[in-house]
Amino acid sequence: MQRHLESSQRMKLDQLETPCLVLDEVKLEANVARMRAHLDRLGVALRPHLKTAKSIDVARRVLHPSGQAITVSTLKEAEYFFDHGIADILYAVGLTPNKFQHVTALRQRGAQLSVILDNIDAARALAAHARTTQDRIPVLIEIDCDGHRSGIAPGDRALLDVGHALAQGACELRGVMTHAGNSYNQDTVDGIKAIAAQERDAVVTSATALRAAGLPCPVVSVGSTPTATFAEDLRGVSEVRAGVFMFFDLVMAGIGVCSVDDIAISVLATVIGHQREKGWIIVDAGWMAMSRDRGTMKQKVDQGYGIVCDAHARPYTDLIMTDANQEHGILALRPGAQSALPDLPLGSLLRILPNHACAAGAQHPAYQVLRGAADEISAVWPRIGGW
Amino acid sequence: MQRHLESSQRMKLDQLETPCLVLDEVKLEANVARMRAHLDRLGVALRPHLKTAKSIDVARRVLHPSGQAITVSTLKEAEYFFDHGIADILYAVGLTPNKFQHVTALRQRGAQLSVILDNIDAARALAAHARTTQDRIPVLIEIDCDGHRSGIAPGDRALLDVGHALAQGACELRGVMTHAGNSYNQDTVDGIKAIAAQERDAVVTSATALRAAGLPCPVVSVGSTPTATFAEDLRGVSEVRAGVFMFFDLVMAGIGVCSVDDIAISVLATVIGHQREKGWIIVDAGWMAMSRDRGTMKQKVDQGYGIVCDAHARPYTDLIMTDANQEHGILALRPGAQSALPDLPLGSLLRILPNHACAAGAQHPAYQVLRGAADEISAVWPRIGGW
Repeated sequence: MQRHLESSQRMKLDQLETPCLVLDEVKLEANVARMRAHLDRLGVALRPHLKTAKSIDVARRVLHPSGQAITVSTLKEAEYFFDHGIADILYAVGLTPNKFQHVTALRQRGAQLSVILDNIDAARALAAHARTTQDRIPVLIEIDCDGHRSGIAPGDRALLDVGHALAQGACELRGVMTHAGNSYNQDTVDGIKAIAAQERDAVVTSATALRAAGLPCPVVSVGSTPTATFAEDLRGVSEVRAGVFMFFDLVMAGIGVCSVDDIAISVLATVIGHQREKGWIIVDAGWMAMSRDRGTMKQKVDQGYGIVCDAHARPYTDLIMTDANQEHGILALRPGAQSALPDLPLGSLLRILPNHACAAGAQHPAYQVLRGAADEISAVWPRIGGW
Repeated sequence: MQRHLESSQRMKLDQLETPCLVLDEVKLEANVARMRAHLDRLGVALRPHLKTAKSIDVARRVLHPSGQAITVSTLKEAEYFFDHGIADILYAVGLTPNKFQHVTALRQRGAQLSVILDNIDAARALAAHARTTQDRIPVLIEIDCDGHRSGIAPGDRALLDVGHALAQGACELRGVMTHAGNSYNQDTVDGIKAIAAQERDAVVTSATALRAAGLPCPVVSVGSTPTATFAEDLRGVSEVRAGVFMFFDLVMAGIGVCSVDDIAISVLATVIGHQREKGWIIVDAGWMAMSRDRGTMKQKVDQGYGIVCDAHARPYTDLIMTDANQEHGILALRPGAQSALPDLPLGSLLRILPNHACAAGAQHPAYQVLRGAADEISAVWPRIGGW
């Protein structure tokens, strides 16, 4: 697929076949610069989570020459980014025996791939595998900072059992990591700050416990876009993993982590019809293009399947995608709106901001890249999917 | 990608890297045979909707030698199926000018591609395009049988305006079509039967109106899996479009269109950990593998993100995926369950039945095909995505 387009090849927005995924490179750069400046002030490294972007072209704009370390959510992502020159990769989903061989194959090719786990059975199995293969796989132990998913609770002595099993085996115990998933459910900045402190405390406490038991713990890793954005003190933490911040989305805007104007990705759609007596405008982007994610449903303002903007990403007042079929989106004014339905004739080109960048992005094979107010695509960046 | 696997290449289920999409070919065949027998009894042709399957290998098992006509939801699907030898294709999303050239290019290559629209602006624009290109594009007018999406309401005189614009232009007015989307919201068989009658009446009435005005209407097309399953009388209808019936899913089981045992696709997942004090089992299939579709949420029984089965697709009593992160699924007993949490140690292989076949399928690059109780994959069938 063509990456960078010569000016003679550049398509205007209105020449693209819809639906497609548009990425504003200027907003991407601003979002990355802001996060990097914040973490620099806190003195902690960024290990970006590329599960949101799934694109080497995006990765190159997020990574700094001084640090080429990344986080991934699948071994396919690990393989893809390694094949594109990034070696220092953390696979941040609990490892099980049916993936050991894939991990080892990647490491034998030169990937500095590290993994995570949270239980003694996995630790023993991986230690045995490492002995057999003579591969000293680096491992972070997952800590459960807020009860939302996987991990060992801070203070649970299972931590030391797992630590000893890894250290006595043939693995490299590299440290601890956690993910503050509950930060997504906050609705105030103070709430997010409290979760960020809890996230930090959980891993710092666990790192202290490992070290007190004579075990190594060089890496202390936290990560979520809300906590990374509002953390005020990350002493004792060595790295932050975050991914959504590159693009942002309506869920993040809904909890105050960004403004709607910061959102760098949108789905380009075309008006295909109207049901005027109902106040509906029908477009050719449905849930296949937006994803089924309804993450704003439980927020203060439900954005349906997304906020509707004009072709230059300026939102129409109160116009959202209220419902979606596979390839049809229904646009209407949000409940209680005082504004009038805009006149959008057949063929009108719209850009729709998604609830969730990871989910909407995953529905598309590529980014159509433009810079700010330009209406010309400057590049097409492929993305990967699957496992 | 390898399509059919020689026995020496056949992987066991427990050799697959998870998550992945498993298709039981025996159930697929039974679902297709049942629908075909029902429609044969009603004397109406099946034009399967391949938006659910997006695979030529599935299409070959659905199509009958006597009829090679299909329905698609994107021009990419049209192109893919045409490239694999299927010529008679209906693109069933309202056409707009930015797709005219793509349609014409496919037709010039030999595709018997027909399109739909529901308004006078689209009809005039397409008629003008057909004149310019000397391409007599066949068009169905979309009818709105139940107010759920696009289409002209039965009895609305816009139908005749659109019909005349097409017939007087250079297009071929081929007929009318509708989709009974509200059939998905029923919770009784009688409710679905009533919607099926309403769906038929809407297009038959519209066809009668066109013919009374001297306009041609050879095709009268309906389609949704629930109405196709329970329709009792399709006199006046020439073809049925339906797609989900090939695989079925929990939404269809929830409204009584199939049994849970009929569901032909599932997501293979591995247990990666436990939160025992919470009664949680964590697997490596999250919403990326299941999709964000929560279509059973408003049904009588909410199945979360899916029903959990053993590796042979036998459901565990009351075990569902209650929550999902991108690559993590949380399994727990459904609220009010009396049964005990099954003992599923680290590494256990599970199959999870999805809410919505179209949405879950779209998350995967291929089907791992097996036959019934076999635990060996007999083929890998690629699927397409994107636009």
